[in-house]
Amino acid sequence: METSIQNLGPGQFVSPLRHSGGVEVKFRQENERVLFEHLTANLSTSDNPTSFELAGPREYLAFDPAKTTAAIVTCGGLCPGLNDIIRGIVTQCHTRYGVTRTYGFRYGYQGLIARYGFTPMVLRPESVAQIHNFGGSILGTSRGQQDIGEMVDLLEEMKVDIFFVVGGDGTLRGAAAISAECQKRGLRKAIVGIPKTIDNDIMFLDKSFGFETAFAMAVQSVRSAYIESTGSLNGIGLLKLMGRDSGFIACYAALAGSNVDFVLIPEVDFQLEGSGGLLEALHYRIAKRKGAVVVVAEGAGQHLMPASGSKDASGNIVYGDIGLFLRDKISASFASRRIPATVKYIDPSYIIRSVPANPQDNVYCSQLAQHAVHAAMAGKTSMLVGRWHGAFVHLPLEMVTNGRRKVDPQGELWNSVLESTGQPSRLY
Amino acid sequence: METSIQNLGPGQFVSPLRHSGGVEVKFRQENERVLFEHLTANLSTSDNPTSFELAGPREYLAFDPAKTTAAIVTCGGLCPGLNDIIRGIVTQCHTRYGVTRTYGFRYGYQGLIARYGFTPMVLRPESVAQIHNFGGSILGTSRGQQDIGEMVDLLEEMKVDIFFVVGGDGTLRGAAAISAECQKRGLRKAIVGIPKTIDNDIMFLDKSFGFETAFAMAVQSVRSAYIESTGSLNGIGLLKLMGRDSGFIACYAALAGSNVDFVLIPEVDFQLEGSGGLLEALHYRIAKRKGAVVVVAEGAGQHLMPASGSKDASGNIVYGDIGLFLRDKISASFASRRIPATVKYIDPSYIIRSVPANPQDNVYCSQLAQHAVHAAMAGKTSMLVGRWHGAFVHLPLEMVTNGRRKVDPQGELWNSVLESTGQPSRLY
Amino acid sequence: METSIQNLGPGQFVSPLRHSGGVEVKFRQENERVLFEHLTANLSTSDNPTSFELAGPREYLAFDPAKTTAAIVTCGGLCPGLNDIIRGIVTQCHTRYGVTRTYGFRYGYQGLIARYGFTPMVLRPESVAQIHNFGGSILGTSRGQQDIGEMVDLLEEMKVDIFFVVGGDGTLRGAAAISAECQKRGLRKAIVGIPKTIDNDIMFLDKSFGFETAFAMAVQSVRSAYIESTGSLNGIGLLKLMGRDSGFIACYAALAGSNVDFVLIPEVDFQLEGSGGLLEALHYRIAKRKGAVVVVAEGAGQHLMPASGSKDASGNIVYGDIGLFLRDKISASFASRRIPATVKYIDPSYIIRSVPANPQDNVYCSQLAQHAVHAAMAGKTSMLVGRWHGAFVHLPLEMVTNGRRKVDPQGELWNSVLESTGQPSRLY
Amino acid sequence: METSIQNLGPGQFVSPLRHSGGVEVKFRQENERVLFEHLTANLSTSDNPTSFELAGPREYLAFDPAKTTAAIVTCGGLCPGLNDIIRGIVTQCHTRYGVTRTYGFRYGYQGLIARYGFTPMVLRPESVAQIHNFGGSILGTSRGQQDIGEMVDLLEEMKVDIFFVVGGDGTLRGAAAISAECQKRGLRKAIVGIPKTIDNDIMFLDKSFGFETAFAMAVQSVRSAYIESTGSLNGIGLLKLMGRDSGFIACYAALAGSNVDFVLIPEVDFQLEGSGGLLEALHYRIAKRKGAVVVVAEGAGQHLMPASGSKDASGNIVYGDIGLFLRDKISASFASRRIPATVKYIDPSYIIRSVPANPQDNVYCSQLAQHAVHAAMAGKTSMLVGRWHGAFVHLPLEMVTNGRRKVDPQGELWNSVLESTGQPSRLY
Repeated sequence: METSIQNLGPGQFVSPLRHSGGVEVKFRQENERVLFEHLTANLSTSDNPTSFELAGPREYLAFDPAKTTAAIVTCGGLCPGLNDIIRGIVTQCHTRYGVTRTYGFRYGYQGLIARYGFTPMVLRPESVAQIHNFGGSILGTSRGQQDIGEMVDLLEEMKVDIFFVVGGDGTLRGAAAISAECQKRGLRKAIVGIPKTIDNDIMFLDKSFGFETAFAMAVQSVRSAYIESTGSLNGIGLLKLMGRDSGFIACYAALAGSNVDFVLIPEVDFQLEGSGGLLEALHYRIAKRKGAVVVVAEGAGQHLMPASGSKDASGNIVYGDIGLFLRDKISASFASRRIPATVKYIDPSYIIRSVPANPQDNVYCSQLAQHAVHAAMAGKTSMLVGRWHGAFVHLPLEMVTNGRRKVDPQGELWNSVLESTGQPSRLY
Repeated sequence: METSIQNLGPGQFVSPLRHSGGVEVKFRQENERVLFEHLTANLSTSDNPTSFELAGPREYLAFDPAKTTAAIVTCGGLCPGLNDIIRGIVTQCHTRYGVTRTYGFRYGYQGLIARYGFTPMVLRPESVAQIHNFGGSILGTSRGQQDIGEMVDLLEEMKVDIFFVVGGDGTLRGAAAISAECQKRGLRKAIVGIPKTIDNDIMFLDKSFGFETAFAMAVQSVRSAYIESTGSLNGIGLLKLMGRDSGFIACYAALAGSNVDFVLIPEVDFQLEGSGGLLEALHYRIAKRKGAVVVVAEGAGQHLMPASGSKDASGNIVYGDIGLFLRDKISASFASRRIPATVKYIDPSYIIRSVPANPQDNVYCSQLAQHAVHAAMAGKTSMLVGRWHGAFVHLPLEMVTNGRRKVDPQGELWNSVLESTGQPSRLY
Repeated sequence: METSIQNLGPGQFVSPLRHSGGVEVKFRQENERVLFEHLTANLSTSDNPTSFELAGPREYLAFDPAKTTAAIVTCGGLCPGLNDIIRGIVTQCHTRYGVTRTYGFRYGYQGLIARYGFTPMVLRPESVAQIHNFGGSILGTSRGQQDIGEMVDLLEEMKVDIFFVVGGDGTLRGAAAISAECQKRGLRKAIVGIPKTIDNDIMFLDKSFGFETAFAMAVQSVRSAYIESTGSLNGIGLLKLMGRDSGFIACYAALAGSNVDFVLIPEVDFQLEGSGGLLEALHYRIAKRKGAVVVVAEGAGQHLMPASGSKDASGNIVYGDIGLFLRDKISASFASRRIPATVKYIDPSYIIRSVPANPQDNVYCSQLAQHAVHAAMAGKTSMLVGRWHGAFVHLPLEMVTNGRRKVDPQGELWNSVLESTGQPSRLY
Repeated sequence: METSIQNLGPGQFVSPLRHSGGVEVKFRQENERVLFEHLTANLSTSDNPTSFELAGPREYLAFDPAKTTAAIVTCGGLCPGLNDIIRGIVTQCHTRYGVTRTYGFRYGYQGLIARYGFTPMVLRPESVAQIHNFGGSILGTSRGQQDIGEMVDLLEEMKVDIFFVVGGDGTLRGAAAISAECQKRGLRKAIVGIPKTIDNDIMFLDKSFGFETAFAMAVQSVRSAYIESTGSLNGIGLLKLMGRDSGFIACYAALAGSNVDFVLIPEVDFQLEGSGGLLEALHYRIAKRKGAVVVVAEGAGQHLMPASGSKDASGNIVYGDIGLFLRDKISASFASRRIPATVKYIDPSYIIRSVPANPQDNVYCSQLAQHAVHAAMAGKTSMLVGRWHGAFVHLPLEMVTNGRRKVDPQGELWNSVLESTGQPSRLY
């Protein structure tokens, strides 16, 4: 694994943190690194174990704070904590480093395309002081890529030195391309990513910001699904949660709520029909308990439906709606056997993703933002900040966008889910 | 208006409240009545103004508490507060009156049909002590009528003396029929209704229980719709709320949340197309604000869709899904004009109706339950307990089930909504 | 009872509401009145029953909206909903009546004393749009009276025509004095009060704004007290709640939370010592249940402590701290009998009063604010807006400040509390 | 560091997990270990780096599940998540391992002393199914040690094989003593600790259970303190939070709430008086902002007050009340300079510690409980389960009780706090 971080060159400016307020700041050295592997057995097989650069303030900076211009963009779907990230970057730039020009591009990468005509917002500590109390992003977002050249043109024109890109896979690949284009043009700009995915499916990251808020909200919907399942004879609470490729939210919500009978995730195949299929298992459960709760991640069971064939603006394949599909299939199955049952279908996605970050995520987002600013000022580029085994680290952009973290069907998490739900380990 | 209450006859038993714990209980007299009308102008036109019997404990009871059997049934859709009502009735029966046999029928009126084989639950203060912390109904509910004769057969067989029926219009009509059948058979049973409708559309009632909890939950969804509307360029947060015939939840949620651009309710017609229609007004709003929130009650705009023709188990006409209909029409309208816009559709109904009652409703439900028990013990029958202008009163069942309370399109509530949203008063 | 409302004279300006947006506004006539009494028995004894003027928009106004200057002040302790009231007044003035100059005085009546040097805030719809999401008052408050002459001087100098005063008893008496001084000086100013008391102890009012939010928050503390009482052997959760003269919050919190063993309020005397006193009853309860929850209103049991003799800035007698007093007395009592017991004392007052209004209070405050503006524009003065039996009404200031609403020790509320707690009706 | 774990001997029974439901369980081997250090620099200095035993299911067990008796005790102050831990242990024992006798001792170690006469609760999955919805501990707790011999007598008499001890430092030292006594008597019992401290001050642990819930609740109080500070001229919101020896809750609450002006923790000394002291800094801040929020951990500033000299039942020194002390000192300081200021003092400790665990802690507690049961069944003893750098591990009891984790005054957390508050790094 290539884990070394691009740098715009040796820092020439002394960090203003050295003199701030009498506190002795612990500057980080470039050779401070965090082990990728923390099991001793795996470690011993290597002389030069893989490791990640430790995040934190550097003593020498690549940019003169007084002359630095910063900018932020938020891309893709909403996720709790976006405003915390924006607020954290602006505050850190201004109050810690003395960078006073901070812009926010509107509506994702569209905001970097001049002809769309979106005026960037001027961001100041006062104007962002209370935004963490609200969900969403004050900048707005959009899906999809834009022309790399045009975006770099605008960055150049606005003399942006450090550029913070908050978004998912596609967005971060865009950030890598922007960084490459800058390098090609000989522009000295630090492009720093902050990975965003409500699904918690980013590689080499303990957790993505907003995930804890999201799954805590999801637990409320699990509770509703459970109450509905007990409210009528053979009630079936069917809950669709986020999770295109990874079922983390579904798993955690089921574990925390603990009244779930079936969890269906993209990582674990299942069949509807047949003696080992979901429907049979559900009939069995209903006969026994007179109610059931089914939690399905949006990306689960896609092979059961005809492929949509279309893609959204982000280039993601538009998935079939597994929630509505299951609702109809389950209803039909009980009707065909003349067993009274009611499916109560809940799709809380927009309610979950639009809430303000909870206190855990408030703190986590602040820390991510602080480390992103430290990295950018030190001249790190084409990289992102993440947390690995509890430590904040720097990761190359391409390393992270090359895959997705998934629930391991043999691992402890899925085992705990099976144990908690009592569902068969194989639904086929 | 006929407002006199049926009574099983003069009370023969001294209320045990007379001797309870040294507190002097204020017993209510039959001639204590609450005026229907409280505007002086309307009052002066009548010599004998309409009034309602005041609720409260009576000094003489129709039943000997020690020999009384009570039963409860909950019918129709879930609504916050059902468990509070159950808990309140059981506690009041046991601890206040000394009635020790209290049953709960399972799954609505189905639980009174012997051949379904549902065993009634035995309810005791200890077993219901914490149920108000959970949403739903511990008894379960079902929709629809059952054979009146069979139900009275079971009541007779179980020797139920006082029977509490919690449900909406159809349920209460069933209660009236049960009461009539009892009378026909010469059975001395008190049938007391507690009106339930999350839509707050019951006549002659200040508010229905659960309504405040429901609209407070709805406000959270309004917030999400608003955040989504600002999260992307020309974002449209579309929120469907409960309200088959009355738009109270939609109106109150819009007033409390106060970031809503359009409220659509069953009481006020609107058109989609045309220069004065919703779509045109929405285009105008989007052009101006770059985002909009639309709240629609489920019963609004039914004339815009083909009639479904079918009915549910309660006998209610199955409505077309105005939410999905609007989502598609709005999306198509913006697409046809090549204006980028995203509709984020939220349907939180099951999430709203399944939450536990909030403290206001905790207290209100306790009070309703207490007064229902007072009434039943005093031999009142074919009636319900409600609150009118702040006072708890007795109302004949047929009086209340003859119509629905609606939002007055000329009244203050709708005026406040128009003012708050700034929407045109006519969307056609 | 004198219930007629002072008026600055016949309206000379046509209300702009007549032409607003095509909605037909239902203007209220001066002879529309709401009955004080709604029990028929009490009514029949009078030919000319007492009634209150109905609130609502008037067709003719005393002020020309385009030339009108409005101002607001908030006084006394914090209470949920203050920001909603401010927001409602500003929005109603601007968007409904076209009044464009709206000031907010800082820090209560101090803000009207020129020499303190507080610059009034200029309030506009945009600047107050989101303030209802936060507790407290954006204007700040202070306690105590200021010189009436100096305050009228400033109102005159700033050419304030309509002045909204939000506060409790003392504050409203100040408003009456300001109104009288204006009249004396021949100044045509409408002084309109909005009664504020978190204790819900205002006469002739269904409920005061913020009360529902406050008691709902108090319920959380009741829950904590209960959990603490079960967490250790003979745990005693002791909770002090607001309520100087009236125990409404204590009563409602106990009813909603329903795990309370003793409620102590100012309206009902009790003794500590003796065979019928609180301590003995508590020992008995602890012996039986191994835990107990005691809720005490701050004004209860004052006769048990030495009088402080001092007064606060509002002129209120500084009460002894009944919470700390009980904590020590209870601890000592159990210690003296060598019974292990732990008192967990909770005083959540500042946590309760500083939260944002809940949705119910959001709506209620908006409505109060709207009616206050209607009244002021119509030239009503030395009066306040309130709600009586569900209808919004106008009341003379002096009528309301002449007494306090109290929990009736013979009434239904206190009876429900006794029933719910099982405490003896007499603790002496 | 000695990190090896005591074991009752080689497992003789095949784990029932091997055959459960077709899922392939990943059994852990004894040589799977997690590195203590994860910075590469520190690692390279050692040939045999310190590591911790990995937690998880073992293939061979020390006890025959069908004949095993389990017991649980909860000690010390309440902490969110206690019921989750109890529920998790009971469920894991019953449903996963088939251990059907599970007892809960009442009221901490007192419940193990026969002469107190507390009957242990019989715990079954059904009886604990919903307890995680409530705060506190269904078993109750107590402070302080009991006679080790008597406790082992009871364990012996009740034939308890695996014993789970949930508590803090002192409790865990007691558990070590119990384990030693068992060994001395030749009793084959597994004594497994689950460390509890709401202060998050346990060594070698990522975080203690309940901490995230606690600090999230604390954030609500920070918000109240802030609102109070703005509600009156020169308002000072003073908030005392938990933290006897470590200021983690105070630090995190300040970071998340982000409206705090001063954070005072036990790890960082400060003076009240003098030109660099707290009072002077507070005067300066008030002059500038007209309000301030001070958050103080209960163990901070103890040297400023006379020592109490007494100890509580747990053997902890009873601290002086720094909250009340500061309230009086600050009030006096402003009064002496005739500057109007109001101190609003908030002590939410019982409100914070008695809430139910939030979803994060629901999951975390379940996982801790599962791993504790795995460990006990495998015969591990005198150890505890914890999480280190994201992995669940086994730690010897004495290792953890030898010190406390503290906020590093040179570290990132405290630096972030200083940055967020803007307070001087030295208050003396």
